Amino acid sequence: MNASPAAGTASAAPPLAIIAGAGRLPAEIAAAAAGRGEGVSILPLKGFADADFSGFAQYPVNLIDPKGVLRELERAGAGRVILAGAVHRPGLGMVRTGIQAVRHLEEIRNVLEGGDDNLLRGVIVFLEKHGYAVVGVRDVAPALMAPEGPLGHLSPSAAELDSIAIGRRALAAMGPSDIGQGVVVAQKRVLAVEAAEGTDNMIRRVVALRRRGLLGRLLRHGRPPVAEMAGGVLVKAAKPSQDFRADLPGIGPRTVRLARRAGLAGIAIEAGNVLILEREATIAAADATGLFLVGVR
Amino acid sequence: MNASPAAGTASAAPPLAIIAGAGRLPAEIAAAAAGRGEGVSILPLKGFADADFSGFAQYPVNLIDPKGVLRELERAGAGRVILAGAVHRPGLGMVRTGIQAVRHLEEIRNVLEGGDDNLLRGVIVFLEKHGYAVVGVRDVAPALMAPEGPLGHLSPSAAELDSIAIGRRALAAMGPSDIGQGVVVAQKRVLAVEAAEGTDNMIRRVVALRRRGLLGRLLRHGRPPVAEMAGGVLVKAAKPSQDFRADLPGIGPRTVRLARRAGLAGIAIEAGNVLILEREATIAAADATGLFLVGVR
Repeated sequence: MNASPAAGTASAAPPLAIIAGAGRLPAEIAAAAAGRGEGVSILPLKGFADADFSGFAQYPVNLIDPKGVLRELERAGAGRVILAGAVHRPGLGMVRTGIQAVRHLEEIRNVLEGGDDNLLRGVIVFLEKHGYAVVGVRDVAPALMAPEGPLGHLSPSAAELDSIAIGRRALAAMGPSDIGQGVVVAQKRVLAVEAAEGTDNMIRRVVALRRRGLLGRLLRHGRPPVAEMAGGVLVKAAKPSQDFRADLPGIGPRTVRLARRAGLAGIAIEAGNVLILEREATIAAADATGLFLVGVR
Repeated sequence: MNASPAAGTASAAPPLAIIAGAGRLPAEIAAAAAGRGEGVSILPLKGFADADFSGFAQYPVNLIDPKGVLRELERAGAGRVILAGAVHRPGLGMVRTGIQAVRHLEEIRNVLEGGDDNLLRGVIVFLEKHGYAVVGVRDVAPALMAPEGPLGHLSPSAAELDSIAIGRRALAAMGPSDIGQGVVVAQKRVLAVEAAEGTDNMIRRVVALRRRGLLGRLLRHGRPPVAEMAGGVLVKAAKPSQDFRADLPGIGPRTVRLARRAGLAGIAIEAGNVLILEREATIAAADATGLFLVGVR
């Protein structure tokens, strides 16, 4: 039933099941893990999973039917499980379609109040209680994580390396407070810090700040060279408390486009700890828009 | 020429000049300082100052005419200077009205690029170079700063005191990176961190986060008690590197109204280090909307 183990680096480990939400990540993981010789099957989450999983055994499941998930994991013969892809919190309308869910509204509310991380951590605890080892992308598809060094044609300048260092120090300091995975640093100043709003919204804030500011006005009226006036770096890293199985810092082509709109010069991501979604498209977008994209230790 | 020194706690110190931007703060400082026996005169910044300074000697000045400012300070007989009130960065249109400014556009750009703090720090250095002592609100009108303890009718609960402690720890950790003066903490999670966008914009972000989230949806459809579901605290404190003469963390009635819109339970401000604008109106707004407002050490 599973994709046949290819000649690869893995693995006498028990077969891997990917519980798959929206986006291409679950399919990227499936391909990378199968390429390493993993036995892989997919449990697409109904209403969320939307990638092409052809070539893999599939066992569709419902997010709000935990017993059904356990049943399908057993059918798949899985010993290890990875959760991947977007699962936006269900709206009440959707929750209401599950009778069990409505009965336990109180419980669901408790889980959801803690944020998406807690939701996923709850699922992890549930799966582990039933004997499954829950793993992360770093474990089964390390090739999807950022390598060290420049990924595209451009590299950060000395001044941009300073900004990256400032950003990394700020992120390290905030780690114990479990805050964010990203900052934007420009001209040695931290312009924005990511907390619950997410990386994309943080970058959009910088777009707005720059539009409002004198910087933007000078750019429109005074027309100094853009390279001289703009700039700044998005820095992303893992939190020290990061549970990589539940919450993985990542970037993708959209991150690059937003960074460009914010006038940034580039993006620095922690090597080994930040996922690059759609790697080829992400690097191509960086090169096309003149941004550097660098993995840093 | 100066307001006559009343019987007060101050001051054999040289007369105080307030270089006044927009808003009521310069007038509040003038009244508080005069009440302590300070000799006070006002240098209203043309195009910015909009409060009522009647009762004080006034010497209007232009933000972009440094020589004029020095001349009026001398006329006022000032020995100490305080900068107060909003001075939004001048748009290019305004800068162009000063011939000198246009000639030194390069210089101005360098100052403005560093953020408003740097703009003000540049003014401070300029004034000190010409023999003036630049002071802050804490020095001449300490009564305007937050006292310790509850300011209105309400006090934080034990859980809210926990959130305040989490917020203060986060702010302390970020201090060395010179980031922000505010965070929003709800259910033990830091929802938002203030950087260049300012406190008001940070609170607006929490308003938006809560609208989008399931939390908001449950509130509208499920109707659990608001007190159970909402909550959270705005925490404001000074940065360790804070130059209180250039940049003063503050709250006012608008902060309270925004905090209410964000569903927060209250506001905690660092006693002695955070300014309360329009104190009576601020406390009245907190009481009217059911928020606590507390000064913390």
